[in-house]
Amino acid sequence: MNEGAPARLSGARFTVEYHLSGTAAEAHAKAEALCLDQTVELPDELVPAGMIREEILGLVESFRELKADRYEAIISFPTELLTGECAQLLNVVFGIASLKPGIRVARLHLPDPVSHGWPGPRFGRDVLRALVNVHHRPLVCGVLKPLGLSASELADLAYQFALGGLDLVKDDQGLSDHRFCSFEERVARCVEAVAKANRETGRICLYMPHVTGPWEVMHTRSLFAKKAGAGGFLICPGLTGFDALRDLVRDDAVALPVLSHPALLGSFIAHADSGIDPGVLFGQLPRLFGADASIYPSFGGSYAISREDCRRIAVEAGTPWGHLKPIFPTAAGRMNVERVSEMCEFYGQDVILILGSGITQLGADVVSACKTILDVVARCAQAE
Amino acid sequence: MNEGAPARLSGARFTVEYHLSGTAAEAHAKAEALCLDQTVELPDELVPAGMIREEILGLVESFRELKADRYEAIISFPTELLTGECAQLLNVVFGIASLKPGIRVARLHLPDPVSHGWPGPRFGRDVLRALVNVHHRPLVCGVLKPLGLSASELADLAYQFALGGLDLVKDDQGLSDHRFCSFEERVARCVEAVAKANRETGRICLYMPHVTGPWEVMHTRSLFAKKAGAGGFLICPGLTGFDALRDLVRDDAVALPVLSHPALLGSFIAHADSGIDPGVLFGQLPRLFGADASIYPSFGGSYAISREDCRRIAVEAGTPWGHLKPIFPTAAGRMNVERVSEMCEFYGQDVILILGSGITQLGADVVSACKTILDVVARCAQAE
Repeated sequence: MNEGAPARLSGARFTVEYHLSGTAAEAHAKAEALCLDQTVELPDELVPAGMIREEILGLVESFRELKADRYEAIISFPTELLTGECAQLLNVVFGIASLKPGIRVARLHLPDPVSHGWPGPRFGRDVLRALVNVHHRPLVCGVLKPLGLSASELADLAYQFALGGLDLVKDDQGLSDHRFCSFEERVARCVEAVAKANRETGRICLYMPHVTGPWEVMHTRSLFAKKAGAGGFLICPGLTGFDALRDLVRDDAVALPVLSHPALLGSFIAHADSGIDPGVLFGQLPRLFGADASIYPSFGGSYAISREDCRRIAVEAGTPWGHLKPIFPTAAGRMNVERVSEMCEFYGQDVILILGSGITQLGADVVSACKTILDVVARCAQAE
Repeated sequence: MNEGAPARLSGARFTVEYHLSGTAAEAHAKAEALCLDQTVELPDELVPAGMIREEILGLVESFRELKADRYEAIISFPTELLTGECAQLLNVVFGIASLKPGIRVARLHLPDPVSHGWPGPRFGRDVLRALVNVHHRPLVCGVLKPLGLSASELADLAYQFALGGLDLVKDDQGLSDHRFCSFEERVARCVEAVAKANRETGRICLYMPHVTGPWEVMHTRSLFAKKAGAGGFLICPGLTGFDALRDLVRDDAVALPVLSHPALLGSFIAHADSGIDPGVLFGQLPRLFGADASIYPSFGGSYAISREDCRRIAVEAGTPWGHLKPIFPTAAGRMNVERVSEMCEFYGQDVILILGSGITQLGADVVSACKTILDVVARCAQAE
């Protein structure tokens, strides 16, 4: 049955930047192990000669010290290992390596993602701005919560958010399809409430329900929401797998902006010596896989993320990358008036700010509270 | 639109055991924060009175010191938050908490999973034993690798594994649908090769191709493999999302045993003070969501996992749990003859041992090498 070795590969390769812990010798051994583990998963002495040894294996393209006991290795892999599936990219980049200590994915270098099957965001930052008709300030997104409110109560809140002038209203990621608040009733009522407010304000606020679920359920929810008049979707790729994000984005029947949410992804950033850098996890990956905005907890709260992490996320969301449209970094985490000022100053205008309890903290009058926040945002944008 | 507060909940709750880092006061504050973060995601002072405060919130059922700066909190949540979706369970258990430092999911207590939508494995340990007709020793599974071999070369290897008497043959998780080795050609040839060997040996070896991919692709691959005569499937829920595992298992059209693989899941176990305990990640979750066997790197290799971790995985795979069938802990990671002896002694007979490069290391004669390994396994089982 053996028809001999397969044809040679094209020679095209993409690279991954890893940060490796240990002495120079230990870190270099980790780099060499990555070349094997992420491809053939064999000890070096068992790797067959020819195409497999010369082309399939990872290759250490550069290796340098970053600081004491911390090294950077840039490793290339053949692009033929990629299939356009997010699962396969993540498998090659970090599948087995995630199980070994002291290895961190620091950056992807994939110069031409479109040709490898990832067209990226359908809308991106500029079209999302056009959809809400806000061009020169951060966007503000209210969160429908808490879990436990009825569909009607959430719709009331959505109405007030939209009447207060917010650009986006999203479900809390805790809202699913519960007996005490079903997905369909919630979406129908919230769409209606936001549309009513939009008629009154003459503005455009987009309502984005949380559709996370098994693929077919999520797809059904998305179609329902689209038909009902929703303005986008919220999904948690850490819960659904990243291909669900990609597949939702590229489905013409549900073509609406998509926000990705970081639920369950925290363990990848919990320790600086392992996992996946926030710039990759909340910047490069959501953008590559098609989110129009990527939510993450911003610095200064109780989350395991630093100011520098957030800067990298914001850079990766917008830096030129093949034909991928820029997306919005989307800063969350107990925003109040003071935090909003700080965030505007830090991120500039190209950010979405997520406001949950920070709005109700301003007092029972949600509409006025929204206006106060928007005034702060507008002033910050003018000051730029 | 407000129709008032929703009806009261049933009062039924499930519990999660968390391990929390810090002083007693810090750990207790983390426990209290979990009650809020994993449900309403509001500061305590903003939680509405009534049903939400009394029933939706997490509740610290017990709190105790484990050792210095390490505490156990058992927290209950209302079962009405569960929807039968794996995504939603993981969201409630660890969605936001994963983003905060010093919180580890140590165990789930979900006494009646079937009634919450998780029937568990379709086959389980005993039926998988019956399928391969091996009742009183560890099963042995060969891995088709390396990535880069042609479909014919992999089929040759599969033939030799089966002729050597292995019980299972699986694709390496690096094998996908590549130009140099397409999924369909590989599966067709490997099925044929294993069937030929089975006719010659009179035994039953099951071939399990790797089907990981976006849901619809994975489903198509699974149907193709089933029709071609495959004996099961390998999937990586860390790449696909856990609901893809559940959905594959419960689809009557593709009803075959399923092995889960740990690719990309390593970051959850990389540091003992955060993430998800291996007993949950590789024991409870795969079993709850329907895998018949759960692969993980066993202790003693270069992976971030200890002997005690492996013991907990093996316990969770088999301990009585509602109506869930026991599954096989499936130990991988550079197994050679010495490691096989050690593993048999450690796990007893209810384990699957994954043999990759450990077999070819015994020499070029794969058939003899398999027989040598099986002799070791049989002797260990008799010695029990």
